[in-house]
Amino acid sequence: MKEILGHVDKSTRGLISDLQALIRQPSVSAKNQGIAECAALVGKILSRSGIKPEILCLKKGVSPVVFGEVKSKKNPGRTLLFYNHYDVQPVEPVELWTDDPFSGKIRGNKIFGRGSADDKGELITRIKAVEAFLKKTGDVPCNIKFVIEGEEETGSANIGAYLKKYKTKFACDAVIWEFGYVDAKNRPVIGLGMKGLLYVELSAKEPAQDVHSSLAVIIKNPAWRLVEALNTLRDRSGKILIKGWYDEVVPFSRSDLKLLEKEPFDEKGFLREYKIKEFVGGKKGLAVKKALAGDPTCNIAGFVSGYTMQGAKTVLPSSALVKIDFRLVPGMDPKKQFARLKAHLKRNGFSDIAVKMYHGEAASRTSPDDPFVNAVKEAAGESFGNYIVNVSNAGTGPMHSFANILGAPCVSIGSTFVFSRIHAPNEFARLDLLKKTTKCMCLIIDRFAGQKRL
Amino acid sequence: MKEILGHVDKSTRGLISDLQALIRQPSVSAKNQGIAECAALVGKILSRSGIKPEILCLKKGVSPVVFGEVKSKKNPGRTLLFYNHYDVQPVEPVELWTDDPFSGKIRGNKIFGRGSADDKGELITRIKAVEAFLKKTGDVPCNIKFVIEGEEETGSANIGAYLKKYKTKFACDAVIWEFGYVDAKNRPVIGLGMKGLLYVELSAKEPAQDVHSSLAVIIKNPAWRLVEALNTLRDRSGKILIKGWYDEVVPFSRSDLKLLEKEPFDEKGFLREYKIKEFVGGKKGLAVKKALAGDPTCNIAGFVSGYTMQGAKTVLPSSALVKIDFRLVPGMDPKKQFARLKAHLKRNGFSDIAVKMYHGEAASRTSPDDPFVNAVKEAAGESFGNYIVNVSNAGTGPMHSFANILGAPCVSIGSTFVFSRIHAPNEFARLDLLKKTTKCMCLIIDRFAGQKRL
Repeated sequence: MKEILGHVDKSTRGLISDLQALIRQPSVSAKNQGIAECAALVGKILSRSGIKPEILCLKKGVSPVVFGEVKSKKNPGRTLLFYNHYDVQPVEPVELWTDDPFSGKIRGNKIFGRGSADDKGELITRIKAVEAFLKKTGDVPCNIKFVIEGEEETGSANIGAYLKKYKTKFACDAVIWEFGYVDAKNRPVIGLGMKGLLYVELSAKEPAQDVHSSLAVIIKNPAWRLVEALNTLRDRSGKILIKGWYDEVVPFSRSDLKLLEKEPFDEKGFLREYKIKEFVGGKKGLAVKKALAGDPTCNIAGFVSGYTMQGAKTVLPSSALVKIDFRLVPGMDPKKQFARLKAHLKRNGFSDIAVKMYHGEAASRTSPDDPFVNAVKEAAGESFGNYIVNVSNAGTGPMHSFANILGAPCVSIGSTFVFSRIHAPNEFARLDLLKKTTKCMCLIIDRFAGQKRL
Repeated sequence: MKEILGHVDKSTRGLISDLQALIRQPSVSAKNQGIAECAALVGKILSRSGIKPEILCLKKGVSPVVFGEVKSKKNPGRTLLFYNHYDVQPVEPVELWTDDPFSGKIRGNKIFGRGSADDKGELITRIKAVEAFLKKTGDVPCNIKFVIEGEEETGSANIGAYLKKYKTKFACDAVIWEFGYVDAKNRPVIGLGMKGLLYVELSAKEPAQDVHSSLAVIIKNPAWRLVEALNTLRDRSGKILIKGWYDEVVPFSRSDLKLLEKEPFDEKGFLREYKIKEFVGGKKGLAVKKALAGDPTCNIAGFVSGYTMQGAKTVLPSSALVKIDFRLVPGMDPKKQFARLKAHLKRNGFSDIAVKMYHGEAASRTSPDDPFVNAVKEAAGESFGNYIVNVSNAGTGPMHSFANILGAPCVSIGSTFVFSRIHAPNEFARLDLLKKTTKCMCLIIDRFAGQKRL
């Protein structure tokens, strides 16, 4: 391993130039900008590193998935899959960027540009780790696969279909997730789960046109209808009041709880950052961490009705619309929860309210006791000296599709500094973390390869 | 009287040409377009009709009030005041007008143009009625005053101050209100009241910036805060739950109730027009009419928070804002009600919600037993053959200021056909109703002048 890690140390220049090439190729999925070109470039970089690339396309209009593969000569029985994405967020507002968003400009320890961290930086550490093995040993310790999609930033609408169609091609024993954070104290966060999501829109459309508000004495107001309906959905502490909502929730395991107790969380810093006085329901300590990792939510993402500009207008609006995202936790099925929501509204006298489902994604959690987690922990400890294990991210990703379709444990770990401004202007990656993470990936491959098949 | 009414019949041409001149002078208060010019034109028309004009200006930046006066030689002890306005609503959307909005074009029985009905048409009937007396008798049966303001369409922000400053100049025994409807069956509606208004804005502004909605487990959502607060304000039937809200409400008098029972209201036509299934709280019959004339409301005029465009965005918004108009009824003081609202929010744990008052106006009702009402009823019966008496309009106007500061009963009656498209494209006035109403105004002056001072 020493030689392999040494090689990583010596090949920083190659890592940087490949990352710059990737950054300089725009690939904004929201605008379909440079998607095909970037997929081709990723294929070229994989190929140059000794990984056999293949551009897969589900159908016209869907971004291609770049598949990469290296078979292990000495250990063909175990396969590690890296899930990444080559698409990036839009760069707007452009005027807030110091350099061209696609420059790949280096200043000191930082490389700037859209995608430098999310997710081109992550991708490059994994490619370079595999390259190091190939360069130094002519082999890899286990089979390696890459699934690099192009629609992550717009919601991974087709990854499930890709996974189903290429189930055999993508077959593996473990998955390294596309992102991973390094916290303010330079500790990598090993993430074991993602929440699910149910995104819906409720709307009320009566009366037929906007009306003088003096008629509010006899005409029902659609904004009031939504307010009344919303109020039946949850209590002030955030608890959801829809019948059966929590029925299938899988509780934290003992191992999860042990991890949560250990997990650091800077309450004061968080309250200060967001300028808030207290957490929802007055939560403190472990309750805050449990909520982040395991509480379902019912969040109003948007509400609009009537006159919303400066000043006063006495109108009874003809329509009102609310967008709600429900975060789901393991055990909850988005379709089932949607049916419960609809039944709840009907039961409570809100049949006049239309309900539309935008998006459904189930939650996923890998057990802290899975041997693969141990491999990752060992590697992280060795390369960073320290690490944090996070039971579940509070956000949502298509982890359930990977875990479910491929039947493999998924763990997220990566090089993205927590204040890297991902999705924002002046996104950057730290060069020291890119190098450290590349070594960490080498160690993950090594430790995973050495584990026996369960 | 016969000669006077005959004169009105013969002078239709003068009425039309003066109204056309007024329509052709734009006077959009919302855009400060042509205000001073229109005030001057009104002064000229008054003067030509034998009414002494005076342009009053409270202070710079405030639209002038045109005051007009004719003293009665034979009956100087009684004064009738006409309240009107020379400003008009904006003409937008211009593309929906068949003719130029300021054309005064005549097609058959209709004269088209912004202000043709609201309120230049009403004003001209009153000027022409006074002119008829002066032309035929060289005198008026009682003193006549005109108060013609230029900010009615933007909320009459300064009429109270004008009334206070010119209390002596405007002193009178009765007021004819600026508007009046003629219903689909050609019956003039004699209106005895206007509701009051309290317009407020509630806003919640936490966290400091928009946040990824996964954090909704621990960060309070400002849209939820408003939904929770709103829900404490009223029940589903529309009843306001703020402590003391109804304490000072003056109930309907026996005379009011008698009038309400008689008042026609086409429930089916109304439900059809607005495509609604039922009235608020399932109201029917008398309850609907009582609500229109006498129920306070709490109406959501606007609500906005977060992402409201197409599709899904998982955001926890940093702010939420709701605009509410409360219609008030006689007895309710806008400032007192505002204090009650603030206290209610505080008491219910919503001190984090900011409350701003935009506008306050008290309600006003003239007693159906007031002798002035009889004078108007007699005149309406004689000129139209029939009439309806309406206890209170569901809308708001500065009637309370007139009734309170001048101490005079206010009654609304006029020439505006109920489907005249006021505030909308292709506004028009009916020539037959303008003539009939001018005669009705002559009869009102005559009957009022003949009544003894109370």
